[in-house]
Amino acid sequence: MWPLYGVHKEAFLKAVWLENKTLIYRDNLPLPEPLEGEALVKVRQAGICGTDLELLKGYYPFSGIPGHEFVGEIVQAPKQPDRIGERVVGEINVNCGSCPSCLAGRPNHCEKRTVLGIKHRDGAFAEYVCLPLANLITVPDVVSDDAAIFTEPLAAALEIQKQIKIESPERVLVLGAGRLGQLIAQSLVHTGCGLSVVARYANQRKLLAQLNIACIAEYTPAAGLFDIVIEATGSTDGFIAARGAVRPGGTIVLKSTYPGDVQVNLSSIVVDEVTMVGSRCGPLAPALRLIATQMLDPTVLIEGRYSLKAVQNAFEHARRPGTLKVIFQISE
Amino acid sequence: MWPLYGVHKEAFLKAVWLENKTLIYRDNLPLPEPLEGEALVKVRQAGICGTDLELLKGYYPFSGIPGHEFVGEIVQAPKQPDRIGERVVGEINVNCGSCPSCLAGRPNHCEKRTVLGIKHRDGAFAEYVCLPLANLITVPDVVSDDAAIFTEPLAAALEIQKQIKIESPERVLVLGAGRLGQLIAQSLVHTGCGLSVVARYANQRKLLAQLNIACIAEYTPAAGLFDIVIEATGSTDGFIAARGAVRPGGTIVLKSTYPGDVQVNLSSIVVDEVTMVGSRCGPLAPALRLIATQMLDPTVLIEGRYSLKAVQNAFEHARRPGTLKVIFQISE
Repeated sequence: MWPLYGVHKEAFLKAVWLENKTLIYRDNLPLPEPLEGEALVKVRQAGICGTDLELLKGYYPFSGIPGHEFVGEIVQAPKQPDRIGERVVGEINVNCGSCPSCLAGRPNHCEKRTVLGIKHRDGAFAEYVCLPLANLITVPDVVSDDAAIFTEPLAAALEIQKQIKIESPERVLVLGAGRLGQLIAQSLVHTGCGLSVVARYANQRKLLAQLNIACIAEYTPAAGLFDIVIEATGSTDGFIAARGAVRPGGTIVLKSTYPGDVQVNLSSIVVDEVTMVGSRCGPLAPALRLIATQMLDPTVLIEGRYSLKAVQNAFEHARRPGTLKVIFQISE
Repeated sequence: MWPLYGVHKEAFLKAVWLENKTLIYRDNLPLPEPLEGEALVKVRQAGICGTDLELLKGYYPFSGIPGHEFVGEIVQAPKQPDRIGERVVGEINVNCGSCPSCLAGRPNHCEKRTVLGIKHRDGAFAEYVCLPLANLITVPDVVSDDAAIFTEPLAAALEIQKQIKIESPERVLVLGAGRLGQLIAQSLVHTGCGLSVVARYANQRKLLAQLNIACIAEYTPAAGLFDIVIEATGSTDGFIAARGAVRPGGTIVLKSTYPGDVQVNLSSIVVDEVTMVGSRCGPLAPALRLIATQMLDPTVLIEGRYSLKAVQNAFEHARRPGTLKVIFQISE
């Protein structure tokens, strides 16, 4: 079936490789071959996410090619050759379809899932990546590559509204205005809720100010003023602030993943009848539809653009406090 | 206004007194006098609850007369003398009516609330107790005193169904089959859900078996089998078991209050998208209506009956592992 669109069987794959908490650029990896039902995607761009930084710190013991936010082009699709040439983004959870979670309609919680660039599946910081055709969603022409790479993180932001109802009179606090916090804030604007964002860095506040979203540099715990608090700081301190900011009977949405445990006074959660909602990935198609409306512009978050070869610089940039989105430009 | 129904101004109040983690019987306390809008209630029976045992251990720094589960008779009601003679149970949260929580329709979370026998208000382990008339609900004749004292804890059980929807196909695990766990189990039967209860003691299992409720002596963590797990063990171990038992995307309802923090891996809560719901007091009127149907019999939980004078024996009994309900018989 090889080769198509300039893929040569004898060539090697260029990619970022993660092993033992170290990232390296490699140009000698074997080219991936799509399994039954999968497609081979030529990656155009890929974004660095907070989870990638956590993987590097050892949050999850992943070795291989990281990267799960991407836009690319289908170059091989044995089962559906008519899809070759499609520009696509990809659902990162690859499920088995037959475990109790899959059969109960919760494929994102498949017990045997692999997760692109996170768990048992090489990711998108590479020239080519494989994913099942069912995971690949066509990007409309109106959506640029720069915007398309935000489909996956915006889906994670929209997951919040899939899990809880946010009503317009409610006071909502987003803690953290980094990569994910900004997308959450933008996605919540349309609920009409009373939105405030804690944004530690001036560049973060500037973006929010452009949308007239109320923001403060530091949250001083007052006694539970907010109906809903969304914790997207990426740090354990965020939970403590969230707990202080939520009103009795209110809801804390947890978005941060980091290594280690947090000391929680569960009795006070009972007495104050607080609800805590863990929130991870969301559905990609709605996120892509929202981007296509152009009523929301995620591309304002892009602050750096690097080649795969410049992986050290790219991650050094992404790690800098206050940095928003850093992306790899892999092909045109 | 004094005296009525055998209350004499010159008399002293007999009551259980809690101070410095010690309980004593006292017969020399001043008789309580109802404030504006309050009634004086002659207590007939009062139940010992897990919270009383925790107060004794210092969970909350309360000094005074404990006790919040009671049935009694109104003997003085300056604002509504026609209510004198009514047999009543009482809503334990006394709210201010004017703070943001009260004005938002969440009186149980009143910022200035006093709580009967728990917080800034003497409780019902006494011959007489004061509560606002608005807190007192008439007990129908069909409900015995023995059944009526379960109104408050049954309301706490019903609070769960006020907070979350429990659908009939769902697999629900109740962890702990003590005082509260039994009432939760009984109240869930009518949802038709797939109910299992972890009941450590033979007497607890016997009661559940009489209702054909599936129960096991010890929960061996399998991988997240339950849609909903209700943690009512009263111990920190309960949370760990609950976390192990809930499926990804499922809900843990927290009912236990105890001193100290618990180590929680919040990242795994995010990845598995688990929801945790703190649950405290519920509305009394629905609980009393349910008891009045006699489709549920809480009195099977009563294992001991003591006078106020025998407070040491009563609490020693209540503290014994596996004990269900111990009550004070205060007047007839």
